[in-house]
Parts: sequence; C-alpha cells; structure tokens
Amino acid sequence: MRVLGIDPGLRNLGWGVIDVTGARLTHVANGICHSTAGEGEGDMGFRLADLHAQLTEVFRRYAPDAAAVEHTFVNKDAVATLKLGQARGVALLVPAQFGLSVGEYAPNAVKKCVVGVGHADKGQVEHMVRIQLPGVIMAGPDASDALAIAICHAHHMQSAGRLTAALKSAQLRKAAG
Amino acid sequence: MRVLGIDPGLRNLGWGVIDVTGARLTHVANGICHSTAGEGEGDMGFRLADLHAQLTEVFRRYAPDAAAVEHTFVNKDAVATLKLGQARGVALLVPAQFGLSVGEYAPNAVKKCVVGVGHADKGQVEHMVRIQLPGVIMAGPDASDALAIAICHAHHMQSAGRLTAALKSAQLRKAAG
Repeated sequence: MRVLGIDPGLRNLGWGVIDVTGARLTHVANGICHSTAGEGEGDMGFRLADLHAQLTEVFRRYAPDAAAVEHTFVNKDAVATLKLGQARGVALLVPAQFGLSVGEYAPNAVKKCVVGVGHADKGQVEHMVRIQLPGVIMAGPDASDALAIAICHAHHMQSAGRLTAALKSAQLRKAAG
Repeated sequence: MRVLGIDPGLRNLGWGVIDVTGARLTHVANGICHSTAGEGEGDMGFRLADLHAQLTEVFRRYAPDAAAVEHTFVNKDAVATLKLGQARGVALLVPAQFGLSVGEYAPNAVKKCVVGVGHADKGQVEHMVRIQLPGVIMAGPDASDALAIAICHAHHMQSAGRLTAALKSAQLRKAAG
C-alpha cells in the first residue's frame, strides 16, 4: 500500500510518499510544492491554482492508495487562519479528486506516533523519520513533516486493520463456540 | 463583457452571471452549488471536490470574462474560519484555472455599491439587485448576494476604465499642448 502525507501551507506545501508492506516502511519520494505566482491581493487564486497543479502531478506520478493531512493549527490571527484554510482546501481537494478520503491528524498525534512523545521538536521528528525510512533524502522541513504524517497514517491504518481482524476472529470464535 | 460573482460557502456557494454592455447590465444566470457529500470529519475533501466540479461546470457553461468574490468575514471562531477558508480556496481556485484573476470586495463595499449604504440588510440588497437586473429570478439569498458582487465588480471595472481613459486623454492633451 502506498501512502501520501501532506503538510499544507500556502508558500510551501510539503508532501511525502511511502510504501507499506506488512510492518515494513519504504521511502518512495518527497518534495515541496511552492506557489510561484505573485503575492499581491488579487493573486491568491493563481497561487492556489499553482499548488493544485503541482499536487495533482504528484498524485498522478505516484498514484497513492491513501492520503493524510496534518490538522492545521488554528491561531488567533483570523486572516492568517483564513489563508491557511485556502491552502488546506487544495490539500484536501486533490486527494478527493483522485477518489481518496483523507486522514487528518493533529500535529501532536503525528509527533507521538513518530517520536513517541507529543511535544517533540522538529529535529527529533526529522531524526525519527530518517531512522524509519533508511536512506531518505529530504527536500526540507515541510517534506520531512509530510513523511511523518504518512508514517503516522500507515501505523494508524495498520492498527485499525489489526483491530478489524481481531474483532472478526473474535466473532468467528464466538460463532464457532 | 460577462462578469461572474461568487458568494463562497461550504454548504451553499452562490454564483451569479451578468452581461455588461456600456452602462447596461443584463442578468444571464444564477444558482447555488451545494456540497452533497457527507459531513463527517473525513469527508471535507469530497465536499470541496463537489463544489469544485459544480463551479467548474458554471465557468465552462457561461465563460465569464471577469470574476469577483466576497471578502470573507473572519470571526473569532477559528475552526469555522478555517472551514470557510477551505471553501473560499475553491472559489478563488476555479477562476484562476480559467485564467481569470479575482476581484475581492468586502461585504460592506458590495452593499454600498448596490444599495448606496454599507449597512443595508439582505432584503434591501435583493431588492436593488431585482431593480438593476429586471426580470431576474433568484435561486436563493446566496445567489442574490453573488449577483450583487458581480454588479459591484462591473461598476468597479467601469470606474477604473473611465479613470484610465481620463488619464490617457489628459496625457494626450498635455503632450499636444
């Protein structure tokens, strides 16, 4: 199964793709989509279209089976939150256009999953991503975060899968008993 | 010139199209895009994809030359602002994908332009839209707001055009004198 993680942002949108075979994770690719259009008031649409085109190309090239996005940290600056929401809209829209629902994880959940503690710093996250994906070369901090999100989603789906399997076998035992 | 106005929202995204010939405005069409996908936590992407597909179809069918969106009112509820930002991202993205930059107007600016005062209520806006677009049948309040935004953008472009023309003729007079 191939999992794509996205760290959404308007200027830098990080993405990372991993393959999951049983308990084994393998790095496939990672990168950062930059919105290169102007930063004037009327250019927001073109910046979003830039991100949309680049992220669509990533989905086309790597054909992931599952996708996950970091829950955006909403702060008191409403204008910044609105802008981030617009970029995040693209990060949710593109997977849906490829028929995928999107897992959403709070930053602390991603850190807890990858590092073991919810208050880990960026350096620790990057370090643990490197350990879990040997040989990975990261395009930048946003790409490293995106890979962490993909790893978190992979673990989450495996747990959910194990749970479903355990429930099924329990039901079978019950039916047989 | 054909102008499309958008009143962005996640549940109801209003749109309205008018034709502008000199000072004359004509109603072309209006409607509301509804996101019909589920409203669960993981369904946001599909809802945005729904809106994207419907709004794209509107642009394809009516081929506007210009587009405008209402400046979103950002409030203290950061989660609601983020969600609205995601819907607004789609409203900015689609025009850009058709090569159009998007005019943005604050709600008060739209009211002032259409009604004459910035604190007009929805009923007054609808009334003035009906007067300026005789015979219009509106799909709902969001569509009426979208038509008001289109009217505001048409007036704004006409003023800007007259200003440019006045400046040009002043420069010509200066050069000739």
